[in-house]
Amino acid sequence: MSAEPIAESSDGPLAVPQDRHGLPIIYAPRGYRWQTDAAPRTREPKAAEVTASRIVDDIIEGRVHVGEKLPTEPEMLERYEVSRETLREALRLLEIQGIIDIKRGPGGGPFVAPLNSGYLARTSSLYFHLAGATHAELFQTWAILEPTLAELVAQQPDRKGKRKAFAPYIDYDPQAHQSDELFTDFNNFHSLIAELSGNRVLTLVTQSVTHVVVENVLSAVDPVAEASMLSHSHEDIAIAIVDGRATKARKLMAEHIHEVRDTYLSRSPDQGMTTVEWRL
Amino acid sequence: MSAEPIAESSDGPLAVPQDRHGLPIIYAPRGYRWQTDAAPRTREPKAAEVTASRIVDDIIEGRVHVGEKLPTEPEMLERYEVSRETLREALRLLEIQGIIDIKRGPGGGPFVAPLNSGYLARTSSLYFHLAGATHAELFQTWAILEPTLAELVAQQPDRKGKRKAFAPYIDYDPQAHQSDELFTDFNNFHSLIAELSGNRVLTLVTQSVTHVVVENVLSAVDPVAEASMLSHSHEDIAIAIVDGRATKARKLMAEHIHEVRDTYLSRSPDQGMTTVEWRL
Repeated sequence: MSAEPIAESSDGPLAVPQDRHGLPIIYAPRGYRWQTDAAPRTREPKAAEVTASRIVDDIIEGRVHVGEKLPTEPEMLERYEVSRETLREALRLLEIQGIIDIKRGPGGGPFVAPLNSGYLARTSSLYFHLAGATHAELFQTWAILEPTLAELVAQQPDRKGKRKAFAPYIDYDPQAHQSDELFTDFNNFHSLIAELSGNRVLTLVTQSVTHVVVENVLSAVDPVAEASMLSHSHEDIAIAIVDGRATKARKLMAEHIHEVRDTYLSRSPDQGMTTVEWRL
Repeated sequence: MSAEPIAESSDGPLAVPQDRHGLPIIYAPRGYRWQTDAAPRTREPKAAEVTASRIVDDIIEGRVHVGEKLPTEPEMLERYEVSRETLREALRLLEIQGIIDIKRGPGGGPFVAPLNSGYLARTSSLYFHLAGATHAELFQTWAILEPTLAELVAQQPDRKGKRKAFAPYIDYDPQAHQSDELFTDFNNFHSLIAELSGNRVLTLVTQSVTHVVVENVLSAVDPVAEASMLSHSHEDIAIAIVDGRATKARKLMAEHIHEVRDTYLSRSPDQGMTTVEWRL
């Protein structure tokens, strides 16, 4: 048991800096029956949000599918019984969250988009940015989530399915790939593990943290220069997961994240104290 | 090391159901230098988002503080050099995310709000809902995050500060509190641990998952009926954290989350398969 190596004590290299920037974070869930009136809480939803939520329900209930166009404006105005302004704001809200894709021009209109964890990442990074969170804190969070996921997937009994899913990472030859393929393959390794966990909350939370790590941090690490290190680590982790060796998978993943972090920080240790950006 | 008891194998009571609803999740970070054009990605930011980002920068850089009013509309139009429509959409975006609070009436206008993790929870729950994630998946995620946080905080060397922070939870007498106070105190226990971790990414991620757990799930558990169980568990965890017993704090927290989950599921095991709502 005991601490993951990355979950260092506060005097480790990932220590939280003394000069903290950013806004304080408030936590105030609504308890319904037991809510105190004094507590700060999220404001009442606006009409546009309620309408957006009804459109989302129609997507979930399969009345309109991914890739399909939503009904016409007059049809939606009749269905949701709101003003044109409210409906348009609802659609803008869903567009901002990546739930629909508004295509311009003839044949255009609002289409249902696939669920892209990049949009949750985008919103999450707004809050990380406002809180003043650093790259070091981002890495530490990633280092907590990824080994747990590797362990969970290793525990899954479907050995055959896992062998098939991880086949591309076993005997991976970096020389045989273009740099953009390397980047995609290396990243997909982590999203594949998140997906195979079978837990969609964990998948979304981890993928959005990974997204922010990649966009803030790893886009500065050259996958070609690191290809040999990355492909060997991925192969070892993949084998441990397929073989159902949960403890080993967890340990190898923790070491892998350490290695990636150290490679990043070796260029300049100060980067760990850089504030996470809100990447639009 | 090794499996948390809650991270059960796929045939445990928290198994992922066979009939999965919800949209598939796509993962496609932008790699900048190495991005393939074929990959789906988040769309280009709109003018309103870029403007929102500049307002956020002004907040972070301390040009306007929490609780203060933003400059007048003419001043902002000059500063950000955008159309009135774009500025207003930017403000609506920030309002939806809880970053600003638009007060109506005389003396009203857009004020900078504190950073409330409830808004990240609200957006996260939209994605959990669309993915078809269940209460069981939510609990499993919570059960992975909370013990790690308890362990991290136990490792913090500032014993005196921790003793002060956790004082309300030691010798807590549920009889001496109203039900709404019980609810607030019990919840704040978890947000306090997230806060003391010193990691703002982890704090925001965990608080938003906890928020969704509380609003979807725990609002159905009566804190008065469970007061004795909850206050004893919290006291034991608090003592382990203050004493710096990281392994024990982790173990007690895992047991605590188990206990809360079992209490919830004991009313009806089917609740574990209920889809997470998008709570506006």
